[in-house]
Amino acid sequence: MVMTDYEKFLSPTGRQLTESAIRRMGTVVAREGDLVSFAPGYPDPGLFPWDELRDIASALLAGRDGNTLQYGPTRGLKPMLEQALRVLETRGIRTSLDHLIVTSGSQQGIDLIARVLVSPGDVVLVELPTFTGAIAAFRNAQAELVGVRQDAQGIDLDDLDAVWQREHRAGKRITLLYVIPNFQNPTGSLLSLDRRLRLLEWAERRDVLIVEDDPYGSLYFEDVASERETRPLRADDRHGRVLYLSTVSKTLAPGFRVGWMVAPPVLIERFDTAKQSSDLTSGILDQCMVVEALKRGVVDRLAPRLRDLYRTKRDVMETAIREQIGSRLTWSQPKGGFFLWATLPAGLRDHVLLERALEQDVIFVVGSAFHVDGSGHDTIRLSFSAPSAERIREGVRRLAAALQPASVDAGAASAAG
Amino acid sequence: MVMTDYEKFLSPTGRQLTESAIRRMGTVVAREGDLVSFAPGYPDPGLFPWDELRDIASALLAGRDGNTLQYGPTRGLKPMLEQALRVLETRGIRTSLDHLIVTSGSQQGIDLIARVLVSPGDVVLVELPTFTGAIAAFRNAQAELVGVRQDAQGIDLDDLDAVWQREHRAGKRITLLYVIPNFQNPTGSLLSLDRRLRLLEWAERRDVLIVEDDPYGSLYFEDVASERETRPLRADDRHGRVLYLSTVSKTLAPGFRVGWMVAPPVLIERFDTAKQSSDLTSGILDQCMVVEALKRGVVDRLAPRLRDLYRTKRDVMETAIREQIGSRLTWSQPKGGFFLWATLPAGLRDHVLLERALEQDVIFVVGSAFHVDGSGHDTIRLSFSAPSAERIREGVRRLAAALQPASVDAGAASAAG
Repeated sequence: MVMTDYEKFLSPTGRQLTESAIRRMGTVVAREGDLVSFAPGYPDPGLFPWDELRDIASALLAGRDGNTLQYGPTRGLKPMLEQALRVLETRGIRTSLDHLIVTSGSQQGIDLIARVLVSPGDVVLVELPTFTGAIAAFRNAQAELVGVRQDAQGIDLDDLDAVWQREHRAGKRITLLYVIPNFQNPTGSLLSLDRRLRLLEWAERRDVLIVEDDPYGSLYFEDVASERETRPLRADDRHGRVLYLSTVSKTLAPGFRVGWMVAPPVLIERFDTAKQSSDLTSGILDQCMVVEALKRGVVDRLAPRLRDLYRTKRDVMETAIREQIGSRLTWSQPKGGFFLWATLPAGLRDHVLLERALEQDVIFVVGSAFHVDGSGHDTIRLSFSAPSAERIREGVRRLAAALQPASVDAGAASAAG
Repeated sequence: MVMTDYEKFLSPTGRQLTESAIRRMGTVVAREGDLVSFAPGYPDPGLFPWDELRDIASALLAGRDGNTLQYGPTRGLKPMLEQALRVLETRGIRTSLDHLIVTSGSQQGIDLIARVLVSPGDVVLVELPTFTGAIAAFRNAQAELVGVRQDAQGIDLDDLDAVWQREHRAGKRITLLYVIPNFQNPTGSLLSLDRRLRLLEWAERRDVLIVEDDPYGSLYFEDVASERETRPLRADDRHGRVLYLSTVSKTLAPGFRVGWMVAPPVLIERFDTAKQSSDLTSGILDQCMVVEALKRGVVDRLAPRLRDLYRTKRDVMETAIREQIGSRLTWSQPKGGFFLWATLPAGLRDHVLLERALEQDVIFVVGSAFHVDGSGHDTIRLSFSAPSAERIREGVRRLAAALQPASVDAGAASAAG
């Protein structure tokens, strides 16, 4: 039997496909049962509303309405779009059905944007660091990703304009800026209200569209942040500059793959057409269940409990790091979301620490994976969202061991012994 | 407020996006409640296994296993992949986990293939006519689609090689042939066993990969076809030439968005990476429910009932057409699947008939929508799968009225009166 050579069949996209570093990490987790994983940004399954979802599924399937399991409109079921409008309104975004499309998670929203709005060679501006799933989607559309600095208040507007001018002078087409203003992935930072308004003005002045990804907005920690501070850019967007993405993945459960995008109708029509050939429609039973969960107030009732839970876990992780690791890691306190973004001691590189951490059965995502410019090797992302308090403490103990310079030899010795 | 001009932001793909004609038809259906729709290929919701699915959902959510609602592996949940292997084995396809990926419906499988294997300008060979969702996905990857003739036994192998030689001489890269051997969409034809083997030899000789889309394989009508005749190309594929797609959309319910693809491991890895940035993972609760439905034999028990139901509906439609319309429509008897493919009386064009049919409150899909070469205006596709027997008869009555040359004037008069 002659084997076929498949390499020659690959398209340019097929040849240069970018794998998300987080997903790679997920594969490691799947392999090793005893690891403490601070790697993927998974929600805590302990707060999935099992009983309510069981009631909902039961009622829906007892109803025997064919539309619950049939093909449905590409743009989303009407009740789902209506519930999304209601959620958006609580976030200060008043819009209408023709500005909305349901997506198979926010990831599909990013992918649709990349396919419809990115030409090969276009510059897409992103924060340094930023979400690996966005990096992958834009790179797969053959964008050139250019990074903009952040500080504790979020994206640095001076650097943003400096970068824009540099790329503009170089003759580049600069179409999009991708940002996560609320509890950014991976830094956990919160973009200040003042900067939000100035960012909108900047986008108008420079004729750039903003992709605002907002999965964590309702997960603010009430000791240091408030709902008011999470007001989306889209809520004050008078010129139609913002494409807004949200999802129930972090506020209900990620297994449903239900998100939504707000965009100008002329673009929604393109996204709709692109989604037709991508997956025809998002899951229909999933949409029906999410509609019911929203209607019955399940998501609203859950939100304060999620805020408490994740704030407590942040505290557990911060306390454990202070006690076990001390000044060898530095970080800004997360004001919401799932992540603690830490800087390593001088001279220690992220991949080296990851190797040592694996020996200690603890993992995280290397900071460089979130940087589009090859930097960030002195940083790591620790997710505190999924593991229990006890596992967080255990994981930090292991991380402390990995941070001991002698641990590599010790690990090697114990493996040999 | 100054309005932003969005046109200039569109990528080449964004500018030329191809909308599926069937989906457009779906929009019409959504608007008009009293239509009889022979347009979309929806399964009959009357045979969705409501009680079993309710039991399954209830048991899964009572189990409170976090993995039921969490993010999951891009390639698919292991139990889902294992069940897919079992289904494949009953279809004569013996393969292994590294050859498999779960897709969000077969549509995503086609899209992943288009993204990974189609370079702009590549020739993709398709049957004349073929599935509009495939046309859209390949066009959105900027393929040049070239049609190959079919007859009652399926794709015409002489024409296939003639077309290949013509395109090859023109210097084109010809990478893929997309076919639906079992109860083709839209023609309903069944590729003969002899041609299947010759098609595999042809692909090897001409160094082309075959995309085999098999959503209807188990829906053969036992009066005129047998399981043996639906043997997939992939079952006899000795050289790894076939990428095989299947789904539970037609055998359980389409709302789940769960399909799978069989392909060489080196390509599966690329599809996995492309899927990461497309939607991260297919619906997790959906996968868990499909696993249970397969394990419990729900799908196996359903299959003979589906075959009976759709065969009966085909009979109802054929009888009604013979009685109401007579020789003004001609067709080959469908041996399985969802569709009756009809040829119009000389001189009547598909769009003209559709206009008249809309006046009579009945719709179908124009045949030209399935043709990549601009032909097919003398054909229409009638789906008998979703409407009840009574609605099929009513729809055919209306279609008969639309086929009366005087009906346009009559329709206009009654609308005015």
